[in-house]
Order: sequence, then structure tokens, then C-alpha cells
Amino acid sequence: MARAQALSESAVGLTEPNPRVGCVITSEDGQLLGEGHTQPAGQAHAEVMALRDAAARGHEVRGATAYVTLEPCAHHGRTPPCCDALVAAGVARVVVAAGDPNPLVNGQGLARLRAAGVTVVNSPPEHAVAAEELNVGFFHRMRTGRAWVRLKVAASLDGRTALDNGVSQWITGPDARRDGHAWRRRAGALLTGVGTVLADDPRLDVRLVDTPRQPLRAVVDARLDTPPSARLFEADGPLVFYVAHPDPARQAAIADRGAEIVALPGAAGRVDLAAVLADLSSRPLNELHIEAGPRLNGSLIAADLVDECLVYLAPLLLGQGRGMAALPTLDALDGAWRYAFHDQARVGDDLRLLLRRRAATPT
Amino acid sequence: MARAQALSESAVGLTEPNPRVGCVITSEDGQLLGEGHTQPAGQAHAEVMALRDAAARGHEVRGATAYVTLEPCAHHGRTPPCCDALVAAGVARVVVAAGDPNPLVNGQGLARLRAAGVTVVNSPPEHAVAAEELNVGFFHRMRTGRAWVRLKVAASLDGRTALDNGVSQWITGPDARRDGHAWRRRAGALLTGVGTVLADDPRLDVRLVDTPRQPLRAVVDARLDTPPSARLFEADGPLVFYVAHPDPARQAAIADRGAEIVALPGAAGRVDLAAVLADLSSRPLNELHIEAGPRLNGSLIAADLVDECLVYLAPLLLGQGRGMAALPTLDALDGAWRYAFHDQARVGDDLRLLLRRRAATPT
Repeated sequence: MARAQALSESAVGLTEPNPRVGCVITSEDGQLLGEGHTQPAGQAHAEVMALRDAAARGHEVRGATAYVTLEPCAHHGRTPPCCDALVAAGVARVVVAAGDPNPLVNGQGLARLRAAGVTVVNSPPEHAVAAEELNVGFFHRMRTGRAWVRLKVAASLDGRTALDNGVSQWITGPDARRDGHAWRRRAGALLTGVGTVLADDPRLDVRLVDTPRQPLRAVVDARLDTPPSARLFEADGPLVFYVAHPDPARQAAIADRGAEIVALPGAAGRVDLAAVLADLSSRPLNELHIEAGPRLNGSLIAADLVDECLVYLAPLLLGQGRGMAALPTLDALDGAWRYAFHDQARVGDDLRLLLRRRAATPT
Repeated sequence: MARAQALSESAVGLTEPNPRVGCVITSEDGQLLGEGHTQPAGQAHAEVMALRDAAARGHEVRGATAYVTLEPCAHHGRTPPCCDALVAAGVARVVVAAGDPNPLVNGQGLARLRAAGVTVVNSPPEHAVAAEELNVGFFHRMRTGRAWVRLKVAASLDGRTALDNGVSQWITGPDARRDGHAWRRRAGALLTGVGTVLADDPRLDVRLVDTPRQPLRAVVDARLDTPPSARLFEADGPLVFYVAHPDPARQAAIADRGAEIVALPGAAGRVDLAAVLADLSSRPLNELHIEAGPRLNGSLIAADLVDECLVYLAPLLLGQGRGMAALPTLDALDGAWRYAFHDQARVGDDLRLLLRRRAATPT
């Protein structure tokens, strides 16, 4: 199962919006017969890749054991059901790390294997936890219909994300920035706000790590103030603007640059952020990665739309400057926006913190 | 040596300004003969305690091995040299974790043991690191003449130490507050500023953990604005005020409450903070623990007087409020006040971070 897990991790950045799954097929005496992981959506799943690999190596899999990090699918999507492929190949035993939360699977994959006479074994619970962690967005979307919202911030120890004059490059070090791009790569979409576009003119793509594809990029821009000269348009990959009441001339200029424009007007001339999240989720995508300024961060946090905070803290103090999130003034501490620490790790000279919504911690 | 280390840790809060040292004496076949740790200053050191313990148990230590976390002292302080006591008792072998940085010892303890025919063995380097860590203030004072300055802050994830209305109780949870009192207990003195006295009216003592003594408490209060009714005067333990140009009547009122008043005027009507540190260091004491507001924090940081930041981060956002440290406005990031992450640990729901001055990391 450890090998199957490693294979599933190498599917990150590749399979969106499908889950990251690894599969290893071994003989009765433990010899490796074939292995594989999920391919890009519409292509083969991990089980089929492992069966093909065994065939390519000239191995017979009749009577073999398949280790798979997620319950084999039981439905016809863009590919036929994997449980049928395993049965047809004569696999005798399937060891599964986690059940598939997809309502179209949800135990039916295992039930069909058992009905066909295949022995189904559940892996220890820590394997289920690892599979869910790797697929936190997929599990969340299957259970709630919504993408997992990850808000990324890079700040000084005293919570400043830029100096008063706007300078922010670079508070954190190169290792943290590279790590941040690895998190971008995981995501189905990257979201920012027009404030960040105007202040930092980001490309908002995955550059510092290798990637098989660029995530969708999205900008919350109520009046469509992004200039057609923005560097966003220079980078590869699809681009969508969420607007409220944009000027038609601006709309034409941005559409000319090849971007999609979606009007989701909310209260007070602003964009309806819950509708943005619903729209992105339905494309579909599993993980939404946000890198924005204090205004959009604060609006998302105050609307309780953030599932996870990914915070890089640099070991330095800036004293004054831009904060992480603009939030309403509090009179008492019980109004604070509360999360729970989930993980912490040193990344180069910096510290990476993961916090999760208290009620939304998966499993 | 592990047992000697555990003994040395139980000396925390007891031995200031002497180092925390543990000693275990074993027979040739590894049987425990006696053990002990440093007592309050002026009383017996670890080696003598272990020898006494062996005698009390009726054990002969001739030919035995002594494990000691710090080089036995070679000088007559308030107690006779420990290396002589070990030689007189006939101990054949001494295993030492770390050398004593005290210029009065500094290898002479080991040299005298060897000259008397005792075999001296150095423990693996990780034992030296542990002994130095436990005695970070003692090592720092012996090497620099200055106490180790530890600045403690409790803040939200976004770096706020209080709401705009001053409410700060409690941003962090009970486990972090108790842990903070354990760090207070380690210290030779606790320092705050008059701003914190007026805003929070703290007792500034060790309450949430058991302690054999209360550290010296010190307040930076240029004009002696602390009211004689402050709760500082209700708690046990000595109290010193560092002033610049106080009103004589105020001075008399505070002296009446039993506090010491030391005038150390600096620039612009303020207290000379470097002189405060020198005065406290010379009392002597090893670890100075600071719990103050953004003004004093900022002055200490800007004057580069902080060796270590002890930061408790709560997993919540406050948006607005009081910052960690008031510092001059920066135009560029290379002016940032930089430290290095040294340790991070979960404490209850909160996160405890230790950062150290880049150049001052010990060893």
C-alpha cells in the first residue's frame, strides 16, 4: 500500500477533477506484477493503468492481489467501471485504503467486487486518512458539492503581508515560494482579486515547480478594472473574470484578450462570492487556491467560505504594513474568526502552517 | 546521562543564577549509587548532592563513575569546588555533557580531575547541546556578561495582541497560558512596561505552575506613572522600577510600597534600555523574560536587545487591533528585524514558536 500511496501522490496536478489514486498488483508470493496511477480526466484510472502495466510486463494477474488507495469506481463515467476491469482480469483480492465518497460509487464498487467473488480487505485506518488528505478537495466536493477553499498567505511573524508602501517581494524565502507553487499545482483553480492584480500584476500561474497543466485562473473584479495589459494575459491557461456591473467597453476589451467573463452581482455593487465558489465548484474542480489581498481575504473569511488557511510565516518583524485580512471591528474576542491548527512545518527559513475550519476538518 | 539530564531539568526555577545541573553516580556494574541536582544558589551543587545521596543510601563510591551534565566547578564560590569533592570521594571516572563556560572554570574542572588521576570522558555532542539549551541564559551570560533576553508575545494568527478596545484576555488558551508561566518560572526576572501596567494591571508573577520562588519583577516606567494601587504590589517577590525623570512625590509613594527604584535616564526622556539590561544582568541573573506591550517590545527589538522571541499564536483572526511591536516605518524589506525559527510546538489549541537572533544562536 505504501507504493500505491506514492503512486497516488505522483498523480497530483494531473488528474483534476478526478481523485489521485494509486494501484499496485502483486502475485500471491508478493511479487510486483503491475502498477499505475490515475491519468488526466477521461483517461484510464489507476486500476486500469496497473492492469495494463502488468500486461506490458507479460504478467498474468489471475489470482493476484490489487492494492488501491481508493475504492474502485462502479459507474460508467468517461471510462468503464474499474471494479469490472479487476473482475474481468481475474484479480482474487482487493485491498482498499479509503471508500469513494462519490455518491455514484460509495460502497458499490466494493459490493460489486464481493458479488463477483473477489475478497475485499480494508487497509488500516491511517491509509484511509492519507488517501482522504491527498484528495481533501475531492472528498469535500463529493460530500458538500463545493470545492475545498484554501487561502494562502505569506506574512511576517507579526502578520504583515506588505510594507505600507506596498512592497511585498519577498517577505518569505525561495523555498517557501517554490512550496507555494506546489500548492498552486494541486489546485483546480487559482483565485485572486482585482486589488492584487493592480498592486502586484501577477501571472498567477504555476512556474516554480514542474506541472503537466496550468490550473484555471479566476479574478474577482466587480467593475472589471483589470487593464488589458495585465500580465495575467501573458501566462498560459484559461482565465475567468467574475464581475458585478462592468462597463461594456471594458468587458469587450477583456473578452478580446481571450478571457471568460461571468456576471455574478451581489450586494452593494460587489461580486457574490458564494456564487463564485458555486460556479467554480460546478466546472467541476476540487481545490480552489486563493492568493489575494486583505480585502478579498477578509470578505471570504467573514462569509465563512474558507476551509483551510495555508500560511507561510517569515522569521522577521515589519511593525507596520498591510494585514492578512480586512475584517469588521470586533468588540469582544468571541467574535474572532476561528480555525484549528492542522499541520506545521519548516520550509527553508520560513514556517508553513495549515489551519482548517473547525467544523470542516475532514473525516 | 539521560537520568542526569532529567535531574537537571527538575532544577529549573530553583538554582538561578546558578546553572541547572544533574549528577548520577553508578557502580562499575551500572548500579545507581546516588543522584542529585543543583540546589538554590549558595547551597550544594549537583555532584555534592549525588555524593550525599550515595552516603545516605549507605553506598561506597570509591571507583565509581559520575555522570554530570556540566563540567564540575573548580573554583571556590559560595561552595567549595565540586571537582575536589569527587576526587576526595574516590570517584574513578567522570562523564561530562558540556564544558562550563564560566571563565573561572572553563576546562579547569576537567583538568583538575585528570591531574588527580580521574578518567574524564566527554558525552556525545547532543548531550552538550541539551545542557546548553537548558542553561541558555547561563551560557550566554558567561560568554557575554549579559542575561539572555526572551520576549514573550501571545497573538492571533494575524499578529494582533489585543482588540482595538484593548481586550486581550484571552487570545490564547489555558494550556498556552500555563506554558507561559512555566517560561516565567525559568527566568531570573520578568520585565514589563508601564503601558502594560496601566492597560492590564498584571501581577507579573508565576501562578499557573508550581514554583519554589518568584522571579524579580521589573517595570520600565520613565515618569513612574504606575499607581501605588497597582496589583503588582499585591504579589510576592521583589519589584524594581527603572525610571528616567520621575516626580519625587511619586517616587516616595512607590518606595513606600516596598519597591526598588533605579534611575537610568536615556535619550528623549526615556529609560536607557541597554542600561536596564546591564543592571539586571549584574544582579546576576541568566534569563530575562519580557511581557510588554508594542511600545517596549518595539524599543527592545529596534535596539537589538532581544535574543529570543517566544510567540504563542492562536488559530484565529482578529483583523484589527494592537500589534506585536511598534517599529519605525520601513521603505524596503531589507530593513526588517530578522530572527531565525528555532522550535515550534503545539500547546493545546495554540502554536508556540521560538525564534532566535540570527547571530546569537548558542553553540
